Amino acid sequence: MSYFITFEGPEGSGKTTVIEHIRVLLSDSHEVVKTREPGGIPISEKIREILLTKEHDMDGRTEALLFAASRRQHLVERVIPELEAGKIVLCDRFIDSSLAYQGIARGIGFDDIMAINKFAIDTHMPDLTVYLKLDPETGLERIQDNNRENNRLDEETIDFHKKVVSGYNELSVLYPNRIKVVDASQSVDSVVSDTLNIINTYIQSRGEE
Amino acid sequence: MSYFITFEGPEGSGKTTVIEHIRVLLSDSHEVVKTREPGGIPISEKIREILLTKEHDMDGRTEALLFAASRRQHLVERVIPELEAGKIVLCDRFIDSSLAYQGIARGIGFDDIMAINKFAIDTHMPDLTVYLKLDPETGLERIQDNNRENNRLDEETIDFHKKVVSGYNELSVLYPNRIKVVDASQSVDSVVSDTLNIINTYIQSRGEE
Repeated sequence: MSYFITFEGPEGSGKTTVIEHIRVLLSDSHEVVKTREPGGIPISEKIREILLTKEHDMDGRTEALLFAASRRQHLVERVIPELEAGKIVLCDRFIDSSLAYQGIARGIGFDDIMAINKFAIDTHMPDLTVYLKLDPETGLERIQDNNRENNRLDEETIDFHKKVVSGYNELSVLYPNRIKVVDASQSVDSVVSDTLNIINTYIQSRGEE
Repeated sequence: MSYFITFEGPEGSGKTTVIEHIRVLLSDSHEVVKTREPGGIPISEKIREILLTKEHDMDGRTEALLFAASRRQHLVERVIPELEAGKIVLCDRFIDSSLAYQGIARGIGFDDIMAINKFAIDTHMPDLTVYLKLDPETGLERIQDNNRENNRLDEETIDFHKKVVSGYNELSVLYPNRIKVVDASQSVDSVVSDTLNIINTYIQSRGEE
């Protein structure tokens, strides 16, 4: 059976590392692929270039529509075919990123961001979402330590990151059945172990349907 | 007083020519600017490049979201500042193009396309829309005669163009106060004259408020 599992959390919460561990661990018993937007989809990659450019001031609603457009194309070209092939798809960020970042942190509004993203994803809501919860200060410290290439979003203030985390917390309360919280301040091993338990519990419950 | 006036119609309906005539005629008594999406706005120009590329198959919803994103940025950077400066803005295509092309002709759905475009334009609906009505066969003949550079949309079938015109007709019935119909099969002089009458009548009615 195919499952669409998304991973969410603020910058520095360790999504990339955790997803790779989970992919390897699940691969013993399932067909698993991991992906992230724009995921090598040419149209989505081109949209990403526009989103990350620092040349021009972009309106918040333009940004939200571009993220939704990129999400749509990646979903259609990459995620849906893998699901139809019976695989487990692990996706780094999806609709909740837009809800937390644009809807709540940027203040565009939850309902509006939900509306354009519902248009983008249609019936393809994630089956399960793992939220790697981390306080914003720790997340930002980790990013700085990693010495990653800066992009536009990383330059936001600590206040913005606090709003993002607060947004994710609200989402996890709104959608307790879909969004499961993992304490990402733990060691990688513990985060991976907690995440695997959540996924296995979910798969087992679906298998019993 | 500032007015936001949009021009709509199928390919070959003569929007570009009519708008230029109207701009010149109104300039005697008003401050007037004309524009069209993407209107030289760098972000919107980059979105347009993605929209017009023939390299990749683009999903209809991705296309609709990209048009809405481009519309938003052009509105914010170009249209709103001119309106705030007290000018009449003549805009070649706006929300009704998306409603007719994506919503009705592509069959994505009127309500969905309205929702993402309402998000894009927020409170900035056109004050007045001139719909240059022309049967699709005549419009396509005119395009072929003009020997214009082909783009992706021009390659659509005659059936698609029929649906676009049918969509515009529906819109003009739905919004009779905002959308005024001009018979674009007439001579350019007559089309311009009818259009000018509509605009002057509108401006007069607003002046009497």
